[in-house]
Amino acid sequence: MGNRPDRDRLVELRRELHRHPEPAWREFWTTARIVDELEAIGVDELYVGPEALAEGERMAVPDDEELARWFDRAREAGAREDVLERLEGGYTGAVAVVERGEGPTVALRVDIDGLQREESTDDDHVPAAEGFRSETGAMHACGHDAHATIGLGVLEAVKASDFRGTLKVFFQPGEEMIAGGKPMAKSGHLDDVDYLFATHVGLDHPTGEVVAGVDGFLAVSHFRAEFAGEPAHAGGKPNDGRNAVQAMATAVNELYGIPRHEDGATRVNAGKVGGGTATNIIPEQAFIEGEVRGETTELKDYMKERAGEVVEGAAATHGCEVDRTAVGEAPSAESDEALVDVVQGVATETPGVENPIRRDELGGSEDATFLMREVQRNGGLAAYVGVGTDHPGGHHTATFDVDEETLPIAVDVLSESVLAVADERP
Amino acid sequence: MGNRPDRDRLVELRRELHRHPEPAWREFWTTARIVDELEAIGVDELYVGPEALAEGERMAVPDDEELARWFDRAREAGAREDVLERLEGGYTGAVAVVERGEGPTVALRVDIDGLQREESTDDDHVPAAEGFRSETGAMHACGHDAHATIGLGVLEAVKASDFRGTLKVFFQPGEEMIAGGKPMAKSGHLDDVDYLFATHVGLDHPTGEVVAGVDGFLAVSHFRAEFAGEPAHAGGKPNDGRNAVQAMATAVNELYGIPRHEDGATRVNAGKVGGGTATNIIPEQAFIEGEVRGETTELKDYMKERAGEVVEGAAATHGCEVDRTAVGEAPSAESDEALVDVVQGVATETPGVENPIRRDELGGSEDATFLMREVQRNGGLAAYVGVGTDHPGGHHTATFDVDEETLPIAVDVLSESVLAVADERP
Amino acid sequence: MGNRPDRDRLVELRRELHRHPEPAWREFWTTARIVDELEAIGVDELYVGPEALAEGERMAVPDDEELARWFDRAREAGAREDVLERLEGGYTGAVAVVERGEGPTVALRVDIDGLQREESTDDDHVPAAEGFRSETGAMHACGHDAHATIGLGVLEAVKASDFRGTLKVFFQPGEEMIAGGKPMAKSGHLDDVDYLFATHVGLDHPTGEVVAGVDGFLAVSHFRAEFAGEPAHAGGKPNDGRNAVQAMATAVNELYGIPRHEDGATRVNAGKVGGGTATNIIPEQAFIEGEVRGETTELKDYMKERAGEVVEGAAATHGCEVDRTAVGEAPSAESDEALVDVVQGVATETPGVENPIRRDELGGSEDATFLMREVQRNGGLAAYVGVGTDHPGGHHTATFDVDEETLPIAVDVLSESVLAVADERP
Amino acid sequence: MGNRPDRDRLVELRRELHRHPEPAWREFWTTARIVDELEAIGVDELYVGPEALAEGERMAVPDDEELARWFDRAREAGAREDVLERLEGGYTGAVAVVERGEGPTVALRVDIDGLQREESTDDDHVPAAEGFRSETGAMHACGHDAHATIGLGVLEAVKASDFRGTLKVFFQPGEEMIAGGKPMAKSGHLDDVDYLFATHVGLDHPTGEVVAGVDGFLAVSHFRAEFAGEPAHAGGKPNDGRNAVQAMATAVNELYGIPRHEDGATRVNAGKVGGGTATNIIPEQAFIEGEVRGETTELKDYMKERAGEVVEGAAATHGCEVDRTAVGEAPSAESDEALVDVVQGVATETPGVENPIRRDELGGSEDATFLMREVQRNGGLAAYVGVGTDHPGGHHTATFDVDEETLPIAVDVLSESVLAVADERP
Repeated sequence: MGNRPDRDRLVELRRELHRHPEPAWREFWTTARIVDELEAIGVDELYVGPEALAEGERMAVPDDEELARWFDRAREAGAREDVLERLEGGYTGAVAVVERGEGPTVALRVDIDGLQREESTDDDHVPAAEGFRSETGAMHACGHDAHATIGLGVLEAVKASDFRGTLKVFFQPGEEMIAGGKPMAKSGHLDDVDYLFATHVGLDHPTGEVVAGVDGFLAVSHFRAEFAGEPAHAGGKPNDGRNAVQAMATAVNELYGIPRHEDGATRVNAGKVGGGTATNIIPEQAFIEGEVRGETTELKDYMKERAGEVVEGAAATHGCEVDRTAVGEAPSAESDEALVDVVQGVATETPGVENPIRRDELGGSEDATFLMREVQRNGGLAAYVGVGTDHPGGHHTATFDVDEETLPIAVDVLSESVLAVADERP
Repeated sequence: MGNRPDRDRLVELRRELHRHPEPAWREFWTTARIVDELEAIGVDELYVGPEALAEGERMAVPDDEELARWFDRAREAGAREDVLERLEGGYTGAVAVVERGEGPTVALRVDIDGLQREESTDDDHVPAAEGFRSETGAMHACGHDAHATIGLGVLEAVKASDFRGTLKVFFQPGEEMIAGGKPMAKSGHLDDVDYLFATHVGLDHPTGEVVAGVDGFLAVSHFRAEFAGEPAHAGGKPNDGRNAVQAMATAVNELYGIPRHEDGATRVNAGKVGGGTATNIIPEQAFIEGEVRGETTELKDYMKERAGEVVEGAAATHGCEVDRTAVGEAPSAESDEALVDVVQGVATETPGVENPIRRDELGGSEDATFLMREVQRNGGLAAYVGVGTDHPGGHHTATFDVDEETLPIAVDVLSESVLAVADERP
Repeated sequence: MGNRPDRDRLVELRRELHRHPEPAWREFWTTARIVDELEAIGVDELYVGPEALAEGERMAVPDDEELARWFDRAREAGAREDVLERLEGGYTGAVAVVERGEGPTVALRVDIDGLQREESTDDDHVPAAEGFRSETGAMHACGHDAHATIGLGVLEAVKASDFRGTLKVFFQPGEEMIAGGKPMAKSGHLDDVDYLFATHVGLDHPTGEVVAGVDGFLAVSHFRAEFAGEPAHAGGKPNDGRNAVQAMATAVNELYGIPRHEDGATRVNAGKVGGGTATNIIPEQAFIEGEVRGETTELKDYMKERAGEVVEGAAATHGCEVDRTAVGEAPSAESDEALVDVVQGVATETPGVENPIRRDELGGSEDATFLMREVQRNGGLAAYVGVGTDHPGGHHTATFDVDEETLPIAVDVLSESVLAVADERP
Repeated sequence: MGNRPDRDRLVELRRELHRHPEPAWREFWTTARIVDELEAIGVDELYVGPEALAEGERMAVPDDEELARWFDRAREAGAREDVLERLEGGYTGAVAVVERGEGPTVALRVDIDGLQREESTDDDHVPAAEGFRSETGAMHACGHDAHATIGLGVLEAVKASDFRGTLKVFFQPGEEMIAGGKPMAKSGHLDDVDYLFATHVGLDHPTGEVVAGVDGFLAVSHFRAEFAGEPAHAGGKPNDGRNAVQAMATAVNELYGIPRHEDGATRVNAGKVGGGTATNIIPEQAFIEGEVRGETTELKDYMKERAGEVVEGAAATHGCEVDRTAVGEAPSAESDEALVDVVQGVATETPGVENPIRRDELGGSEDATFLMREVQRNGGLAAYVGVGTDHPGGHHTATFDVDEETLPIAVDVLSESVLAVADERP
């Protein structure tokens, strides 16, 4: 058994991260702060930015101007210059390694990015009331500030224990855009991993519940379709136009009409759309930012293929061109039974855990699945662990917050699970 | 001035034709009866069936079974066997020629086909009350029985006059399907025509009105689009299907959305649609029978081209194939001013004509325009003449009928116009 | 153990029924023939037509003309006049009761209707080759001829055994239209039933397989939506129209776009659609015959409610009226574990059964679920039993046929299951 | 005959105005600059801002923040503080009156607003090359800088002439949004106007052409439809959502499908649309900014009514609410023959006018029609005068510019027309 984590230090760190939420590939301040902590704890190997990511696999990378804006903000907010330099171009995130002799290689994956939304200023919202509300315009509305903190806590706890083997903690960027999982999965750092844990707080489970084996990840693919037509004066020459908004609207209607599939759940959403410039101009441009999902990767691929047909056909119907790009993707994945056993066993023994749950369905998507499948493909085992937390607002809403009692519970459950697999090899 | 037409004989003939309405390319009895009359009157040349039609230009020809059914019916109803033989394969209609020495070649075009609809049995409906209601299941609901009668009356009147020149009367099949105008226009019989009159009764004008120059014919194209997908069990394997009804529905919605045109009026209609076989089968087949129109032939062509895009695009959107065929077509056309003058001059002098109108807009379509344009292309002149008739029900409805007083008026106006152009050469 | 069923007699009877397929509420000949057999076997009670059906619960009843046509055909084909009289108005089907003293009441439900489709004339198609192809224009393309035969076989076998209790066999009409299950379920004849078996041959299982507990019935609702607009001339006055085909097409597109549901599988299909009369008339009428399904009755109800919104909204969008009627409906249902045990035990012992399967998913719908739920609501148990048969063509196709070896196997498994529950009371 | 206008001064003024384009109700700098000039010229009455506009008739007024931003910008750019105060709240524009004794009241209407678009920085673009490109981010891309200049030029020229009567010049704001015409028309300042001229440069006519009587204004109505649904997680609970983007897309498709009208040209455009927030959220909000037009006000009203049905029906189809507001509107109008005669007569005599054209069709919309109809309703006469100008880019494009030779020609033609009607009273 390791030492109990230092609750106050975890809370302090989480609140500091909470003040600096940064969206995908813009986690400059966050990565720098994590590196700081890792160096303070002391690690054997540390891979930062491009060293932690497979070349050419990043998706949804913002443009240079956007990157520069967040880079400068991070510098102004006090991020370490030497780390920032290594992150240039939006290569964020890190992999930290602790080596403790012979033994299995165990990995933990936590995500570190924030969401592009305003945080509540309401007095009932604890971060606002207690002065650690976001300072960046973005928001940690999904608990990744807690995840990064837990990653550091687990690393420290394992290092301080009698662990034998190698521990790798993956601080992953860009989960919200399902954009960072694949480049980390393909970075090579997973090649020798025997056991992988991934974790998430909340998910509608209250403080005191732990889910050993979150399943039901829907495979997902995000896309952006750009429709291009010809503009024309809507009063004088409507026939000269090629109406990109008509094409987009036809695509929207027909995307939702892609047939259901006998093999299981599918999803589709045209979540953000727009087009046109003025009431009196036949619209020349329109776009859909959408997604398809499937209970399995095959079902997601079915939806993706059909969505492609719909978008092409709708453009052709109105004499427009369309350019469709995938901007994020994640497969489905399942937790391995043997690791689920380990986590459940640990959770039952952990102080503060009142209700250890064996497996639950998520119904959403998450790109930790890239890492899980990579490990499983190499013959290793993987499990996704949910750690309940009382959260006043829903995930992704302006009043989302985590109950900080969750932090030591999560560090306990995960570090003890790491020790357990090292000891017992399930 | 010619002799007054024999009203009673015209009425008798029209009623006989009214009892035997036959749709496009099935005018077997009708053609045979017309040939009978023509031989009785005596003509110099007579072209029947294939001799009156350009090879390969017929559209919307029914299948062999349907042709055989009407052919047999005509024989049973007493059509002359020798004429029937010449019409085999659905080559109906005739061109009759009267030659009277030196002078211009003047033509009259009348149409002879009926509509595929039931005729009223109501006591207020004169054909029902007086015993000359349709015996074929089809109906002369647009006055073509009167037109054929008028064609014969004009030929007889001109022959009996001091006319100098050549008169050709075109008894055209398949106007309702806009399917017979083109093969007659391209038959060669128009090549030497200097003046062409075409005529129609009614058109919302009462008995006593004559319109010298009906204009505003919309160019039109009829099409049939057949969508072919893949069937599948709607409960068990919806994803295996390729839904032809979805494709058709998308096409319908987008057809009506083809942009309006700066150059003038356009029209589109998916007038008859269908698809699928049972509630629990993803539909494999669907169709649209539709039409596009334009104020000019160019506008019709614009609509036709865009409709093609829509139908192809809609099929592709749902992974279906589509086969689109034109089943009828007619251009726009305008009456020539000089002939309008002639007709108006004649109408003013004709007994029974109370209100000679100079030009009026139709707002519909008519394939006499093929003949008019052919004559105009060759340097001749053409005019479309409306002859008002009190009609209790609207055109194409079950209670349509013509006021038989119209028959001698029409014969007068048209035969005197023929004489006038021969005398005066406008 | 009962006696082995007489294979030849079963085959003969099945082939006779195969020659006379009759669709929902038109099973005049079939019912009369079944009554014949039942009287020959000897039953204690026999409820025919209206006596076997709850008043006012029939759905999808054809019009009087259609009923009269099939009634007359049945008479001409030799149906007994005394039975026919009892079926007038389309009250078909029967319930037969055999009483053998103290013991449980056990029921078997078989369906007896045919499908409205042509049967293959191909030489490879056994009914065509061996002279028992359909004589009615409809077709037994789903094996209900075998089902009725099996029902009679089981009744005879149980009667000949040492069975103690009451056996009721339900010969249900109108399953293909999911129209007959509810009136039989609500007839009162199920009130005292302790155990109910329902059965189906085939379902993609070969001869020699038996499925103890077919599950995964999707709850289903069939509907017909009639759209009514205003006609107008498509060239002359398009603005005067209210286009029922546009309304229908909008509804089709949006029906398929009803959101997927978190709780499980849903389905929707606009299986048969049509509208309009002619290319040049803005369509005044259009219809959709469609269905919605759900993995549970609640999911079906969700789909039904949303479909109602879509259809109403689509009509309003185009200024049309819509009238929507449910024409058939069935809930979902599950087989009870205890009865599944019984059937599996029996199947394991039955000659000819090579592969007894414990539970399988159907993925379709079936209105035996009305009877199953009625029995379960009363505290009884129900199970749906699949009996494999080699079928060359798929269900509902022109070449569907059953391997007649299936008949004695099915009679064996079901009659022995009846005896087993009477003996052992699971 | 008046004096020739001072070309250099007109050019200088136009270039100054060109540097300060301001969109509807934001013409703070522009109005102040016009008032400056008017006071320099000397007028008898001057109505500024709210004094020139009917209370409660402004449409498309921007929000306070937007107004404040432009107000501050105008102040910083040197607008006179005393005039700015009178314009607070976005009441812009002015009416200037010159009284010269007994005689008719003649009015000229010019518009003064710019467009919300970037101006070209290309060296070929004269304003860029010669240093008078826009400094505001908006652009005078439709020549209203020239119009305001011409208004001042005409006032000065008439004042310097022997004109007898009253001249009123309307400097109208918000034409591009068709938002300012009605409040000026209803302001009361037109009540005594006998003759009204409105004018526009360009319209695809080169320098040297003048169109006496631009016609074919399409009546127009702009609208904004806001769709409101319910958000939901697209992966986890799609059925909880009410999809505002689906509603919007359905509306877009069906808006374009509103039937064409027998009475003449109609138009519809969903020119700017948008909706949703993120790919994984069922969209809660969506909007359409669109327009309908008609050759007559009645045709526009037909389109508007049908568009209302479509938008309501589409929302209902998807269980959403919709709020539709008119944000701008203009009727059709025709130039009076007698005034067309006057202008044509004047144009023929004007130096620089090589091609005086009698009437031409516009094919667009313009809210000068409100003023024209108001004058005509009161028994006065109105005419719309086109003054050709060589413009390198099309109207509303980034490279639009006017040939400054047009300025003196326009002042000449319009001031001489004012004198002509005063002298001759057509």
